[in-house]
Amino acid sequence: MSPTTSEISALKSRSSAFFQESQEKICSVLEKLDGRGSFVRDRWSHPQGGGGDTRLIENGGVFEKGGVNFSDVSGHLNDKLAERLGVASQPFQATGISLVLHPLSPMVPTVHFNLRYLELENGDRWFGGGTDLTPYYLNEKDVVHFHTSLKHVCDQHDLTFYPRFKKACDEYFYLKHRREARGAGGIFFDYLRDQPERSFDFVQEIGNTFLDAYIPIVQNRMNDAWGEPERQWQLHRRGRYVEFNLIYDRGTLFGLETNGRTESILMSLPPMATWGSRTQPVPGSREAQLLDAITSPKNWILPGS
Amino acid sequence: MSPTTSEISALKSRSSAFFQESQEKICSVLEKLDGRGSFVRDRWSHPQGGGGDTRLIENGGVFEKGGVNFSDVSGHLNDKLAERLGVASQPFQATGISLVLHPLSPMVPTVHFNLRYLELENGDRWFGGGTDLTPYYLNEKDVVHFHTSLKHVCDQHDLTFYPRFKKACDEYFYLKHRREARGAGGIFFDYLRDQPERSFDFVQEIGNTFLDAYIPIVQNRMNDAWGEPERQWQLHRRGRYVEFNLIYDRGTLFGLETNGRTESILMSLPPMATWGSRTQPVPGSREAQLLDAITSPKNWILPGS
Repeated sequence: MSPTTSEISALKSRSSAFFQESQEKICSVLEKLDGRGSFVRDRWSHPQGGGGDTRLIENGGVFEKGGVNFSDVSGHLNDKLAERLGVASQPFQATGISLVLHPLSPMVPTVHFNLRYLELENGDRWFGGGTDLTPYYLNEKDVVHFHTSLKHVCDQHDLTFYPRFKKACDEYFYLKHRREARGAGGIFFDYLRDQPERSFDFVQEIGNTFLDAYIPIVQNRMNDAWGEPERQWQLHRRGRYVEFNLIYDRGTLFGLETNGRTESILMSLPPMATWGSRTQPVPGSREAQLLDAITSPKNWILPGS
Repeated sequence: MSPTTSEISALKSRSSAFFQESQEKICSVLEKLDGRGSFVRDRWSHPQGGGGDTRLIENGGVFEKGGVNFSDVSGHLNDKLAERLGVASQPFQATGISLVLHPLSPMVPTVHFNLRYLELENGDRWFGGGTDLTPYYLNEKDVVHFHTSLKHVCDQHDLTFYPRFKKACDEYFYLKHRREARGAGGIFFDYLRDQPERSFDFVQEIGNTFLDAYIPIVQNRMNDAWGEPERQWQLHRRGRYVEFNLIYDRGTLFGLETNGRTESILMSLPPMATWGSRTQPVPGSREAQLLDAITSPKNWILPGS
């Protein structure tokens, strides 16, 4: 039985409200943690309907740059997206939250987090999202904590979720031309359309778990010592982050192609990045350890977790 | 009448020799001009046949980073490229020179220059290439000199070349999502396949003119004063250069998709770039003048030139 229009819209409204509340909560927690910076709000309208609220923190005590974007837009699918979805061009509604944090310290990993809900006029609707961690220096304990936090939420909903979504994340955040993963992965899911209420529960729990998965890592590492060699390594690795986002990231490219709001879409780019010739890290160095960890997918779950 | 295989190969060999000589000459002139840096040579082999010679200068007195790449490779067209060319998948040979220079001083423009020759087993062959200038601060005199130098070569061959190739350059080096050109343009041409000898003459003259078009600009500007605000503006504008190369540049994306040599393809990226929120430049400022100049195509030829 197809849901009625009002049922669909109710789910859209509830999702939108949850994403907006999450944005408030996340920004508030991040500001407290940062201690120095604060988020600047930039509200914008979508040319076809709706709009968004982009929050940007720059030159903070912990976060050199971070963006947390909420959007709730409506429009008409363009031909390209309709073709990719395998449906006729038609009106759509979309709401979501998207976050990228670039810490100043090379010892603190970059993180990306996104949740979204889409519905089409034909009644089809689904959730998507995920979160992934991009360390510059690998601390296995941190990565294990991140993955284990996500696995616990996944397992409460469906024991197949974590292995499927972890694999999807490894496959998605991969730079083919570098033969490297973007980082230490996490989870990535899309087209979550069965049992909408259960899917929405899952999405909310991922949203509520994100801070628990990431903040302890920041707290563990934000006071670690670093200097110019670590900063240079971070800037070099951030170049790879730029490469991923501009060459491969479907959300970025789709947003730019469809005349989305460029400043909000590209808030994911790091504040500064470098591209220079580099010799291969010395075997056994911490830089080499990171490269080892991102060359092929790893299991980050300890036995019994 | 179709050319014979030996005629085609002769043109390929002569083109390859010219591109290689150009690389030597250009690197030699640039090293003298730089005064401090020198090009490091990196020879490489193509998995399917042939190879290349990438020269990289870093942290020079004038050039913060510059790459001059020569390649002469053979292989088999993959399906994607064959489809784009509208031909059956077949063996090809390609040779070319490609250069990008990122000066340290924000007062000196970045430049890109490329010449290439392709031939297919079916007898089709053509030249392509171009050069374009990306200033951070606009000096109209410099841009007029650059365009006029190119126009003179074009006009000696065909009076339609400069207007056509200038327009193609404006169209190609355009960042749709920013509604901006990459810079002040130049010329861009492809599929130059009529009268191969005359085309080769033209390509050689463009090759021989490139230094005359660019070097005087460097000499005019390399001693101009600049400070932190100009550097910040340059790093911000270089972010746009990265965006163009990774999102739009066909050569870059094709190279990466076909498992080309990543380090040589991405030598075009600047040594350092930034992405941060920026307020619009003050009207009338030199930064605002640059934005005015790249918002829509301009005529850079003075009357009577």
